[in-house]
Amino acid sequence: MSGKVIIAGLGPGADDLITPEVQSALDEATDIVGYFPYVARVQPRDGLTLHGSDNRVEVDRATHALEMAAEGRTVVVVSSGDPGVFAMASAVFEALEARPEFHDLDIRVLPGITAMLAAASRLGAPLGHDFAAINLSDNLKPWELVEHRLRLAAQAGFSMAFYNPRSKSRPHQFGRALEILREECGPNVLISFAKDVTKPTQELLTVTLGEATPEMADMRTVVIVGNADTRRVGPHVYTPRYAKPSASSA
Amino acid sequence: MSGKVIIAGLGPGADDLITPEVQSALDEATDIVGYFPYVARVQPRDGLTLHGSDNRVEVDRATHALEMAAEGRTVVVVSSGDPGVFAMASAVFEALEARPEFHDLDIRVLPGITAMLAAASRLGAPLGHDFAAINLSDNLKPWELVEHRLRLAAQAGFSMAFYNPRSKSRPHQFGRALEILREECGPNVLISFAKDVTKPTQELLTVTLGEATPEMADMRTVVIVGNADTRRVGPHVYTPRYAKPSASSA
Repeated sequence: MSGKVIIAGLGPGADDLITPEVQSALDEATDIVGYFPYVARVQPRDGLTLHGSDNRVEVDRATHALEMAAEGRTVVVVSSGDPGVFAMASAVFEALEARPEFHDLDIRVLPGITAMLAAASRLGAPLGHDFAAINLSDNLKPWELVEHRLRLAAQAGFSMAFYNPRSKSRPHQFGRALEILREECGPNVLISFAKDVTKPTQELLTVTLGEATPEMADMRTVVIVGNADTRRVGPHVYTPRYAKPSASSA
Repeated sequence: MSGKVIIAGLGPGADDLITPEVQSALDEATDIVGYFPYVARVQPRDGLTLHGSDNRVEVDRATHALEMAAEGRTVVVVSSGDPGVFAMASAVFEALEARPEFHDLDIRVLPGITAMLAAASRLGAPLGHDFAAINLSDNLKPWELVEHRLRLAAQAGFSMAFYNPRSKSRPHQFGRALEILREECGPNVLISFAKDVTKPTQELLTVTLGEATPEMADMRTVVIVGNADTRRVGPHVYTPRYAKPSASSA
């Protein structure tokens, strides 16, 4: 088998955030596999077949990629952001686990700029100290576990980045998350909403937890919550690199 | 004032992980400011002045960048990895806070591939679910806070990435961190050591917490600890995207 699967991160949206490593992989691919809007970001050309698929079929899509690679194809599975952060890399390895005959396939993951770090850069440096990245969707884990993790992350004094904060199918959970954060952190901690980050439609908003409302987020938004030291300087939001001893009880 | 400060991430080491956005900034710079080995990664050219400085002078270096920008220069402050993750972005905003006369300066942060995500990509997808990023150095926070955060992150069931796990000046702390992780997570959770990730000298090692020893890490190593579900498949290490209800007590 000389085929391979490359799981590549396209970054959050702007073309100049695609690494040369990923661009080279796209240039040598015979097949591109991924969610429709991400596949649509790849330039069509002769010899390249685009396989767009719907959301929520990640393991089927990954299995298809493995099967084509086993036939000798050079398959690039595209993710937005970084494929290792709430994206396609784990889905490919889940599919691989179910198909031992593919365990010797050449599979590589190429990192990309993940949404929280793009959002942080546009805001300033709100993740400049210890932080946690949490997927707020309960599609693949119980909501109780999300609440447990929010409380412990707040008690640890982590800044936090939330992926998939809110969707039409679960409109109330993000409001509950905000309640928990206000309970654990108080009303004055800063929270930032970064929608369509690095795209022409980008919107950035920073308020306090006391001012935050659920409607400020949707599925195209990454949410970043600061720690007790996170502050504004000029138009920027940043978290200092240091933490005082008192922060351990924050 | 028409000068500006651009804080740019050079990624973990490989040139093909530098984004085109960052490359454009380097191409238009009049001055490059940073820690010596990072400045050495920038190609010298006519009209470009390189200002390398020593480690642990981050705020002095940042102030120098602000001062040059105020004089009309186009200054790029270079970080390895992503400037917003345990790197220069927060240091620049700390320096800015102390100098209100510079608050209107044009300051932009350009994201890069941070070491933990490059390491995760080379290992497989060990950060494929909720995770925490923790700087294990106690230069800027008390060691007790590090221990507190390790315990809460483990109790939350987060995978974890550790920056600056071990140095010559504090050789014993990483051993203590491993003890805490074994207490909280048990001996079977996977831990990976990624040294010089994406460089020609890259070394990757994955063992269990029971097998891990402090000597497996140094300051050039990023350490990634899985959660209770993190597993091997073929030569890869990955964390599934889902979590079972029982994981909330992990």
